[in-house]
Amino acid sequence: MTVFHSEIQLRETHETEIIDITSEIQREIARSGVKDGIVSIFVAGSTGAIISLEYEPGLIKDIPALLEQLAPKYPANNYFHEQTWHDGNGHSHVRASLLGPSMTVPIRQGQLIHGTWQQIAFMELDIKSRKRRLFITIIGE
Amino acid sequence: MTVFHSEIQLRETHETEIIDITSEIQREIARSGVKDGIVSIFVAGSTGAIISLEYEPGLIKDIPALLEQLAPKYPANNYFHEQTWHDGNGHSHVRASLLGPSMTVPIRQGQLIHGTWQQIAFMELDIKSRKRRLFITIIGE
Amino acid sequence: MTVFHSEIQLRETHETEIIDITSEIQREIARSGVKDGIVSIFVAGSTGAIISLEYEPGLIKDIPALLEQLAPKYPANNYFHEQTWHDGNGHSHVRASLLGPSMTVPIRQGQLIHGTWQQIAFMELDIKSRKRRLFITIIGE
Repeated sequence: MTVFHSEIQLRETHETEIIDITSEIQREIARSGVKDGIVSIFVAGSTGAIISLEYEPGLIKDIPALLEQLAPKYPANNYFHEQTWHDGNGHSHVRASLLGPSMTVPIRQGQLIHGTWQQIAFMELDIKSRKRRLFITIIGE
Repeated sequence: MTVFHSEIQLRETHETEIIDITSEIQREIARSGVKDGIVSIFVAGSTGAIISLEYEPGLIKDIPALLEQLAPKYPANNYFHEQTWHDGNGHSHVRASLLGPSMTVPIRQGQLIHGTWQQIAFMELDIKSRKRRLFITIIGE
Repeated sequence: MTVFHSEIQLRETHETEIIDITSEIQREIARSGVKDGIVSIFVAGSTGAIISLEYEPGLIKDIPALLEQLAPKYPANNYFHEQTWHDGNGHSHVRASLLGPSMTVPIRQGQLIHGTWQQIAFMELDIKSRKRRLFITIIGE
């Protein structure tokens, strides 16, 4: 039984960008030597999310469009957050809480389990370009 | 410390169907022999979700009704996904990303932890009847 | 490799209250002695959720406001749940299913990983004051 941990670093994200990290997670599983277990993916920060989707050009526009309907960016001062912090990202925060910062995915025979048309992705919700640290924890044998 | 893995197979789901899998998960915990730990449940595929709910006849209609308000099925070509793929399930994809494909639940004294009125369920979001594979990973001792 | 488990007890919650449990989780990690691994947090019950947010006075009003837009409290009989149970909390249930009862967060060098402005919290969604049991499971070494 092993605990293996590492990080995925992302540079220069932009708002509502969705970044496929499936192959990076698979690479870390290979490095860990774990054949059967789980991998936990977590973004440190309250304006990013880990999601699962079919990573194709339509859906990477549809998910931002949905979030814009559920929690619009403007007017920024519709958010109480804005009234104190004046940083224009109240919508980023509530969207991130809705989607969540963590996901746990199974590993079998050294492979990340996912559907043929299913990828694991980071979604940037903040309004500014950010560097992001994703924490990868692999537990298994 | 043990890693135990298995699958739950579902046949002939239909759109927005919510299927209680609590007893199937409990059965796998019993098979694993794990007394204390966690169980990870994951659906492979980008149009299904794992949720927690009170499994009763009202809520299994209320959750689909909520999703229909948040991400309507029609018109299908409101979704960019539709414009490329023409498979009528753009809404299925965005709903699945919102709910998420994974859940992790504790095990104590060989029992799945859940509230008296709380069940773990698979929710089908695709428009066609599907066979589904749910991956169960139990880690503990 | 260790499995450590404990509970966080909350008393007298109120509807849409968000309670920062980050330091309680950190305290349990210290008690466990685990240096590297994961902590799973789970609420038993179908009208509560575990979320991540920047815990500040604006956002603890913004998240309830978002949920009120997505799944309004009134009229209660807009929910099928209400028609059977007449307990006025159909909105509580669907909100809880949307946010989810579980979160998994990494541990490094004996510390809970989270952003500087990111906390882990319980959100009460039921309409009555409740006592809540949160199940903490720490796996690692």
